[in-house]
Formats: sequence, C-alpha cells, structure tokens
Amino acid sequence: MIERIAILGTGLLGTSVGLALRAAGFEGTITGWNRSPDQAQLALKARALSNIAADPLEAARESQVTLLAMPIYATLDFMEKLAGVLGSDHMVTDVGSTKGQIAEAAGRLFNTPERAAFLPGHPMAGKERGGAELAEADLFRGAVWLFTDDPGWQRSPHGAVLVKGWREWVVAIGAKTLDLDPARHDELVAWVSHLPQFVATALSAVLEEEVGDAPELKDVGGRGLREMTRLGASPYSMWRDIAYTNTEAIDHALQILEQRLAHLRENLRTPELRSEFERANEFRRE
Amino acid sequence: MIERIAILGTGLLGTSVGLALRAAGFEGTITGWNRSPDQAQLALKARALSNIAADPLEAARESQVTLLAMPIYATLDFMEKLAGVLGSDHMVTDVGSTKGQIAEAAGRLFNTPERAAFLPGHPMAGKERGGAELAEADLFRGAVWLFTDDPGWQRSPHGAVLVKGWREWVVAIGAKTLDLDPARHDELVAWVSHLPQFVATALSAVLEEEVGDAPELKDVGGRGLREMTRLGASPYSMWRDIAYTNTEAIDHALQILEQRLAHLRENLRTPELRSEFERANEFRRE
Repeated sequence: MIERIAILGTGLLGTSVGLALRAAGFEGTITGWNRSPDQAQLALKARALSNIAADPLEAARESQVTLLAMPIYATLDFMEKLAGVLGSDHMVTDVGSTKGQIAEAAGRLFNTPERAAFLPGHPMAGKERGGAELAEADLFRGAVWLFTDDPGWQRSPHGAVLVKGWREWVVAIGAKTLDLDPARHDELVAWVSHLPQFVATALSAVLEEEVGDAPELKDVGGRGLREMTRLGASPYSMWRDIAYTNTEAIDHALQILEQRLAHLRENLRTPELRSEFERANEFRRE
Repeated sequence: MIERIAILGTGLLGTSVGLALRAAGFEGTITGWNRSPDQAQLALKARALSNIAADPLEAARESQVTLLAMPIYATLDFMEKLAGVLGSDHMVTDVGSTKGQIAEAAGRLFNTPERAAFLPGHPMAGKERGGAELAEADLFRGAVWLFTDDPGWQRSPHGAVLVKGWREWVVAIGAKTLDLDPARHDELVAWVSHLPQFVATALSAVLEEEVGDAPELKDVGGRGLREMTRLGASPYSMWRDIAYTNTEAIDHALQILEQRLAHLRENLRTPELRSEFERANEFRRE
C-alpha cells in the first residue's frame, strides 16, 4: 500500500498529479521538490503537497514512490543519482515524453531484485504552457497514460507491489493506461503528438511573419485558427529534449507531411483534392 | 428599415443567421429556400424562418434584403439570375469564403442607381460540418464578419439605406465587422483560414494512413491532436469552390509552410529550433 510519495518537479504535471491524488482520496504524505522553490511553494499552497523537501534525494529515500516530473534530460540525470541511493523497497516512475532512452536507463540502473523498481510512464495530458499555477486535479481525466514496462525486468517483491499500486492510482485519477514497447511508443507519439506540435509551431511562425504586424487580423481566423495555433505557444524549453531524443521519428513524420502538403497543393484544382479530403474525413469519423 | 429578408440556402450559415436575427429582435418576415427541401424544413422547424418559398427568385423579389448562403459558384449563379429580376429597391448580400470573383460580379451586375445593391460579405464563423441541424443563434457572437464593399459603387438611395441597415443587423447578432479590399481579403483568408484548413486536411490524411488502423491510438494524442485535426472533418463540397477561386494565394501559403516545416526539420538539433519556437510564441502572445 502506497503511503509516501515524492514528486520531484512540481510544474504543471507534477502539481496536477498531487492535486489529482488528493481528489481521488490519497491520504498519505506527498513530499514535493522543485529546482525553482517558488513553483514548489505554489504547489504547497494549492494543497498538492504535504510538505516541501530541501533535498530531492533525501525525499526519494524517505518515500516509497518517487515521481520524476521534469524534462527528459533532467529525468535521466535524476535516474543516475537515484539509482545510487534507493533500494529494493523503492519505486520510481516518470512522465517523460519520449521513452527510448529512459527505458534503456531503467533497465541499466533499476529493475533487478536488489535495486529500486522503475516504471517508465507518459501521461498524454498537458497544456501549451507549463507551471504549477495552471495545475488541475482533472488534468488526467479521460487522458491516456502510457507505460513502457519491460516483462524481462526482475523486480523485488516489494517493487512489484509498488508498481501495481501506482498503476491503480493512475486509473483512480481518471486516466486510461496503455502499455507499449518503448520503440513503438516513440514512433507513435512522433505521429500523434510531436508532429502536431511541430506543425503548430511552423504554422504559427509563418503567420507571425505574414500577419503578425496586424494583431486585429488574428481575430479573423476564428476558432479554427485559434485551435491550429494554440500549441504554437508551447515553449522551446518543453520541446528541446523531445526533439533531441526522438529526432529520427520526428524527421520522418515531418517529411511525410511535407510531401502530403505538396501533393495537396499540386492538386488544388484536380479530383485528387476530393480523395485527400475523404481520407482526412475518415480519420475524424467516430 | 428592413422588414422582409430572404435567406437562399438554409444550411449551417443561413439557418444560423435566421436564428440570430430572431434572437436579436428582428420581427419582420424571413423567407427561406434551399435546394434540398429537407434543410429548409429543418430551418423552419427551428424557427429560423417565417415560411419556405417555392421559388427563390420570387422570394428575393418580395424581400428587401436577400442573403445568399451557399457555396461560391452557386452564389455566382444566383447573382446572374437575381440581377435580372431585382431593382433599385433591393439589396443582396452573401457569405462566400472568397471575394475576388463575387466582388467583380457585384460591380458588373449590381450597384448602379437603377440596379439592386450588392454587399459582398464573409462571416468568419462555421463548423467543420454543415447543415441546418447544427445551426446556432450564437454562431456569430464575437466572430469577425468581413465586407468587401467598393466606395466606387453608385447605389440607389434605397439600396444604400438597406446596406447600412444590414450592417447594423450584423452587429446586432454579435459580429465585429471589418472592411477589406477584395484582393486583400482573399490573400488574408488564404493565411488565416484556408492554410489552417489544408494543413488540418493533410495532417488528418497522413495520420489516417499511419495510425488509422488502430482507432484506440487516436485517443493517445489527446486535446492537441483533436484540435489539430478537427478541421479534417470538413467536407470537400465546402472547400472545392474555395480551392478553385483562391488557388494562387493558397498555393503560395502552402509553399511557404512546406519550406518552414523543412527548415524546422533540418534544425531539430540546432539552436535555430529555439528561434522558431520563439517566433511561434510571439504569434500567440496576448
């Protein structure tokens, strides 16, 4: 039974997990830590945390479950540090948007009977801007929470129980879990998450140059334009690690889309345009 | 004072205008006509119309203001027909998504002291699917309603009064009006409306091929994916005329975006990626 959780990284996701756990009835201790102390203070004030830790490694050691809710490279750094201080009665999980490198580190540094368990996770929820101030208890309701667990990992009995317990809390906060192989995960999210983001960024950047000097014209596009550029507000700091750790799959997806746009452009006045619309309609059919 | 309006075309936009006029206090007659009689019946049942006309030209002749709420080529056809049966005490307006050809026809067929007045209009509101059943009185609330009027047109005194009166009703139903030159209109909407649509269509078509065989995976993308592909449900029938009447501007906008995507792709691991995100952030800055 999980009674002590450490959330390292109390931005949008970390703080939302704290709020969601409380809303779902978690009554144990939630200790938080954040590189910028003001984000931890916001999370504490919002009652996502029981207390703030001065030392993140100490907080992890005193908890049963540690959630790393930070960018990918920071997660990989913490995995190295935590592997040295945690043991078979601990479990660690994360929210990183690419899983290849994290799953590799999980196999190398964790998941033996003597070591802490590590369950790579990725909630498909978020906002175009981060920060504890935007956190919501309902952020994960109806969202998919992906895991890239490995059946070959040999966990301690205690670690296995904690992994099972964490999965149950993820369901309790309203998410639908789905298990994927890490490579398939990274390929899939390149299509359904990273490609839409990079398209929104490119579209927003183009529009900034073309109509950005006349702010009243942004209104003209209405709901369609707002939706197609909302992700354009996403900061580089959130996406840099994703671009670096899933480069090949994103490169491939972008190339395919570029070819598709060129095909559509060359067929603005031919019957092929109808086929492209019908193919697109198919994707949105309920 | 406008007391008799004909709405030719009672799909999503035409029916919504009828509902919006009623909600804003219009107490006169609203006569409707639609090529498919069932759409007119739906509009009548929703109380967007006072009555249904058997003959659209007759309905226009018996009204002061005629709203053409149909695709662009159908609008151009009706303009030819209406020019022969209406006179200086009539006004016609439309909702067409491109304005170059419609404004040209308005100058050629209308807008002399002896003829009916024509005010080219374009409400920036709609949905990814059409039909009277989706109509809403609030569809235009907060939306921009573009006009491409021509100061050189010499209208009858009566026509000028009706044009002014129609502009007032457009404001009364909650829209913000903006006047543009027709060429500038078509160039602008290519960026803020047509480009987002064609991007959503291409993205949806690509995703249908890549992940369409695993419907549960569509959930994975979450809100970002849903928003970026919502317009993918738009039917070809709504977009064919737009692609045909604004081909050059759409072609240009698509080319610029393709180049931008390629640039972003080539810089997934360089500092230039930060600049692209920052440019995109700028577009979304409030």
